[in-house]
Amino acid sequence: MNKANPDVVVLRKNTEGLSTRAYTEILQEKLPDYTVVHADTPKKERELIQNAPVATGVTMNTELLDCAENLELFAVASSGYNHLPMDELTEKGVVVSNAAGIHAPGIAEQALGYCLMFARQLHTGWQRNVNHEWRHYQPGELKGSTVTIVGLGAIGTEFVNRLEGMDVDTIGIRYSPEKGGPTDEVYGFDEDSIHSALARTDYLVLSTPLSETTRNLIDEAELNTLPPSAYVINVCRGGVIHTDALVAALQKNDISGAALDVTDPEPLPTDCPLWRMGNVLITPHVGGHTPKHWDRLSDIVVHNVEQLERGSKAEFHNRVNDPRTVPSPKVNED
Amino acid sequence: MNKANPDVVVLRKNTEGLSTRAYTEILQEKLPDYTVVHADTPKKERELIQNAPVATGVTMNTELLDCAENLELFAVASSGYNHLPMDELTEKGVVVSNAAGIHAPGIAEQALGYCLMFARQLHTGWQRNVNHEWRHYQPGELKGSTVTIVGLGAIGTEFVNRLEGMDVDTIGIRYSPEKGGPTDEVYGFDEDSIHSALARTDYLVLSTPLSETTRNLIDEAELNTLPPSAYVINVCRGGVIHTDALVAALQKNDISGAALDVTDPEPLPTDCPLWRMGNVLITPHVGGHTPKHWDRLSDIVVHNVEQLERGSKAEFHNRVNDPRTVPSPKVNED
Repeated sequence: MNKANPDVVVLRKNTEGLSTRAYTEILQEKLPDYTVVHADTPKKERELIQNAPVATGVTMNTELLDCAENLELFAVASSGYNHLPMDELTEKGVVVSNAAGIHAPGIAEQALGYCLMFARQLHTGWQRNVNHEWRHYQPGELKGSTVTIVGLGAIGTEFVNRLEGMDVDTIGIRYSPEKGGPTDEVYGFDEDSIHSALARTDYLVLSTPLSETTRNLIDEAELNTLPPSAYVINVCRGGVIHTDALVAALQKNDISGAALDVTDPEPLPTDCPLWRMGNVLITPHVGGHTPKHWDRLSDIVVHNVEQLERGSKAEFHNRVNDPRTVPSPKVNED
Repeated sequence: MNKANPDVVVLRKNTEGLSTRAYTEILQEKLPDYTVVHADTPKKERELIQNAPVATGVTMNTELLDCAENLELFAVASSGYNHLPMDELTEKGVVVSNAAGIHAPGIAEQALGYCLMFARQLHTGWQRNVNHEWRHYQPGELKGSTVTIVGLGAIGTEFVNRLEGMDVDTIGIRYSPEKGGPTDEVYGFDEDSIHSALARTDYLVLSTPLSETTRNLIDEAELNTLPPSAYVINVCRGGVIHTDALVAALQKNDISGAALDVTDPEPLPTDCPLWRMGNVLITPHVGGHTPKHWDRLSDIVVHNVEQLERGSKAEFHNRVNDPRTVPSPKVNED
């Protein structure tokens, strides 16, 4: 195939400061028998997607999708896919795969970094550092504490793996507790289980998708149930915590601090009191950022491009929809 | 024994904001058959130590030691004991035990916290937080990196244990590499080995005692041998790094940052350029601080008090000297 009729089109929109041009180069290197093209302008996107069986990128809209006559696979560069026209994609028979899992190591490290920051009071260190102030304070220890993880998917599991050498007790909360899990104890999402866990939690780590069950999961009653020595760490979606209830709990010293990589809303408004609290660290949704983003994403895409050849026997990775019919493979057949 | 003739005297000096009164209470609770007394004034110290077989505290001087007529054991509350009149203690037949090991979990957590702070750029997060600034940046990952640990004693070993779930490569440097160790590779203190390790190090963690071998171990040549992406983490003694060479290396971007819980000198002078560097975190020698300080120390002391009863068969924990004769046991014999 020539460049006017590419096998794989990389859409132009960049993400998190990472260039899709670099992504194109990595994909081409891993798919030497395919033609991978970077559609670096809106016009090129419309032109190049016309005959391409595979497209990948940060987003997709219906206008662009209407230009695609042979699209079989769209690989989105994020874990989330609510921003895509999923119905249209599925009706058109396009398999959609996402990037779930590629961010898990980084998010798990971020969550553990927050835990150790609070345990060892590194934020107090930073504040004294700013003052050029050598004055002793009293850090605690993570060792011996109880860490509760809400959500035991890829992120929760990677996080628990990293607690292995820490000598802590772990409680997991998941939709399907009957599956068990890597934590010492596992419970479901029923209120009694959650509250009983919170009452003996030192570090609450939220790593669950946002859903009707988890929206405002951590509200006034939950924050009041945590011991005042507890810390809340959110690395999933801001909406899992009721922001006003969190502000109130922190203002009343009902909990000892919070680390929030995600907020509700995002960006967090500059007048939100959370910004001004010395025991709150807000980071701008960087938990998922990894220098390995394109490398790990391209492994998923390469696998799925290869699966396209298998037609009805295709076993896609990270597939998030179920088109009624997957068109027979067309890539690289000329 | 009555309080005027105690078995164990706790000297008054407090440490790291921890009260020796609380230490006395914990020791008395764990030694119900002994009389434990808090010497809370200089005068009481002189009086109470006169007949006591055991004393414990932060320090000891020759004047106070001269008052002690029956002292058999002095349990110092720190790991270091260079501040004690060791020759006089030993000549007097007093066994000295230290607190080595009780700080290791906290220091190991502190070192890992620093690693994750740099890997995930949490210090950048704090700087933006201070500005109420929601603006994305690009953290890295600890996963896949090479961590070199200089010193594989209690602290180094506890630190390496905590790397278990992190998916990193580890290199250990120790005096006796023939012993092996918990790291993937182990080398000795010869210059070639150290430099070869540094050349492929992402995180250098210093956890070795200060000695003639380790003073200024990390000097200009070592800092130039590290990759510019490397971070230096010091949780042992400030003198292991040549401060001026570290300042110069950071000023030239020869390394990416440093976290220093110990400095040379201590306290670090307020005009030291390290205070002003955004990629340097200085904490005021708090790595060893643990809320478990008295609890863990008292376990050592209780064991050693019990060993005193065994006379020549005594097997003391954390013994740091070797008196020619250990006097026969006198505690609690009346």
